[in-house]
Amino acid sequence: MHSSLPKSIQDLVEYFSRLPGIGPKSATRHVFYLLQSSRYFQEQFGTALLRLSDNIQHCKYCFHFADEDVCSICSNPKREQEKLCIVETSVDILAIEKTNAFRGRYFVLGGVLSPMNGIGPQDIRISSLLQILEKSETEAIQEIILALPSTMEGEATAHYLFQKISNLSDNKKISRIARGIPLGSEIQYADENTLARAFEGRQIF
Amino acid sequence: MHSSLPKSIQDLVEYFSRLPGIGPKSATRHVFYLLQSSRYFQEQFGTALLRLSDNIQHCKYCFHFADEDVCSICSNPKREQEKLCIVETSVDILAIEKTNAFRGRYFVLGGVLSPMNGIGPQDIRISSLLQILEKSETEAIQEIILALPSTMEGEATAHYLFQKISNLSDNKKISRIARGIPLGSEIQYADENTLARAFEGRQIF
Repeated sequence: MHSSLPKSIQDLVEYFSRLPGIGPKSATRHVFYLLQSSRYFQEQFGTALLRLSDNIQHCKYCFHFADEDVCSICSNPKREQEKLCIVETSVDILAIEKTNAFRGRYFVLGGVLSPMNGIGPQDIRISSLLQILEKSETEAIQEIILALPSTMEGEATAHYLFQKISNLSDNKKISRIARGIPLGSEIQYADENTLARAFEGRQIF
Repeated sequence: MHSSLPKSIQDLVEYFSRLPGIGPKSATRHVFYLLQSSRYFQEQFGTALLRLSDNIQHCKYCFHFADEDVCSICSNPKREQEKLCIVETSVDILAIEKTNAFRGRYFVLGGVLSPMNGIGPQDIRISSLLQILEKSETEAIQEIILALPSTMEGEATAHYLFQKISNLSDNKKISRIARGIPLGSEIQYADENTLARAFEGRQIF
């Protein structure tokens, strides 16, 4: 790569290059920026990386990232208890939160069904979700909103969940967010307005 | 920012956002990529950052970054001893090395003269450069190539250096790389071909 550089710099350039969308040129730029920045910032940054996984838990209700047992959304009494939004990943929660179009609670499935990749119902959090919905304390939930990707796998997962949840109880409304989001794309990359409109236009399953 | 996220994640997103050209959205993407990557990679990356400055020295001849006293370019006997290229920063060396248009040695000035910003000859490595050129062991140097930015400050610095070096000895050729590089831009952002042509077309000062 840059054979004239010390190994410690070359290593760091290589690590930055592995991040999504960062090529060798911008990786080098980032490392030179860090070389010129304060020792304090280098240490803060390095320590944050080293300890990244140390204090992170998954919320025992929704499986979103959390500082404690329960995440800041599930522990917030102002969130609407009667709405539960099912998402694939935690990043999807961030995107939805930015729209301010939804004030209920979430559940992170941790993936979508994908027979091609060998991902079946037991590989994602479907049984945890069904257990939660069976518990008496979640009787408050009146509507379940599916906000899964509009890919083949996301659609299949939505249909599978619809069946399973309908079997559990028939007094819960099951909806999914409108197909305002472009087909074939992931929730996390949708722009805020499209995503907000998709929430408003959600349709009863 | 992302108030639903644990503080350790929010901190890291903020640190990534400070890097040049990284906004909050891509910073978040990088952190989620890291959360999904192995603990081993997180530790390698974090440790590399923490130790970034520990083993890095400046070459005692050219002031490029080095693992030891002398950098890998200055210690390479195959480099042409009769050519010395003066650059503003170490990043400029990387850009020039990639072109393969120059096989001599370098000297990193560490800045350019900028009266507006209070940077005078004593704030960059002009006296170190002149000392090196005065030493008998550098008699081998026959040509000094100025590869400074084509900005006002870079031009002024080139003229200043030309005066100083001419006063020292009149048997050294002083050239500067051709203005193939777009005016007002930095050496490090030039593309390889333009930079290679600029080396070929260098003109006697």
